[in-house]
Amino acid sequence: MRTAASPPRVYLAGPEVFLPDAAAVLARKAAMVRAAGLAPLVPVDEQDGRARDASDLAAGIYAGNLALLDACDLLIANLTPFRGPGADPGTVFELGYVAARGRPVLAYSADVRDVAERVRDGVGAAPDRYGVLRDPDGLLVEDFGRAENLMPAIACERAGGQIVRVPTDTGGPAARIAATDGLAVCLARIAGGTASA
Amino acid sequence: MRTAASPPRVYLAGPEVFLPDAAAVLARKAAMVRAAGLAPLVPVDEQDGRARDASDLAAGIYAGNLALLDACDLLIANLTPFRGPGADPGTVFELGYVAARGRPVLAYSADVRDVAERVRDGVGAAPDRYGVLRDPDGLLVEDFGRAENLMPAIACERAGGQIVRVPTDTGGPAARIAATDGLAVCLARIAGGTASA
Repeated sequence: MRTAASPPRVYLAGPEVFLPDAAAVLARKAAMVRAAGLAPLVPVDEQDGRARDASDLAAGIYAGNLALLDACDLLIANLTPFRGPGADPGTVFELGYVAARGRPVLAYSADVRDVAERVRDGVGAAPDRYGVLRDPDGLLVEDFGRAENLMPAIACERAGGQIVRVPTDTGGPAARIAATDGLAVCLARIAGGTASA
Repeated sequence: MRTAASPPRVYLAGPEVFLPDAAAVLARKAAMVRAAGLAPLVPVDEQDGRARDASDLAAGIYAGNLALLDACDLLIANLTPFRGPGADPGTVFELGYVAARGRPVLAYSADVRDVAERVRDGVGAAPDRYGVLRDPDGLLVEDFGRAENLMPAIACERAGGQIVRVPTDTGGPAARIAATDGLAVCLARIAGGTASA
């Protein structure tokens, strides 16, 4: 256990870095983490001084994020769908990274649908002759009642709970990514002591 | 270094498990790994006996895959786009997981385009007033000349090389996912000793 002087560090993985108002949204979410008595670690973005000196900006961002991932005590991922039915690949990479280090991973999504529902609504899905749900390209559609692919979904369940789903009906993709309700539920879980590695 | 009796174990991450002919495609790729003097570890799928006994099938697949990820000496990921501009989230989770364990990660894609090109071709992308590339929802489009989000892309570069891109012009998404040319290049890199943690 840490003392009050060094609260647990929470890495905020998510596609917020791609928003036009990335800094403001991340500051709002970081403030919520702080209000919960935790220390927020916010991903490096292209405008960030921590990445600016790198000769290769992408490599600089990677190194900056990796240092934060290595330093965090737990991770909260925003798995709200990003340009398609799935979450942002960078966010899912980070979730796997922290899970491998044996630290608790939590996640939320502003989309309440299962993977199967999102694929059906997006490109379509129907049972094949064996009753297996497939998309129009013949690819199997995961139908496990989870909000995301089973690897990130079960990683979260092992750490204490299902991916939090709070609907955000107003606004487009940017508003859904910026939504804070799911983060609030994750922070309440941590405060309640139900999240663990 | 392992002896010839226990060759390095290579986990084959990828969306092949979703193909109608998943078992055949994975057997073909596993045979290539074996022919390169390595031991293939193939993901668990829904039809797999390793997962069948689990009361919760998804949790059984997760546990099976995690055991393989923990056992592997390196990972080769198929990052060919899956239902959208990005890779399969399960594959990217596994790539992050193995990277965190300090083992080499390699990857290939049957799509030769950069992230920015795929987003432009898919939903569209144009520079905003500050010259930042954005999609129609206002979300920033990564334009680093990489085949995937910078987190998985740079993880591969740190292990020895860029994501291998070999075009597969014939067939649809299923044929691109099943393609083996990129895997062959990754195996050649391992044989050449250029991949490392």
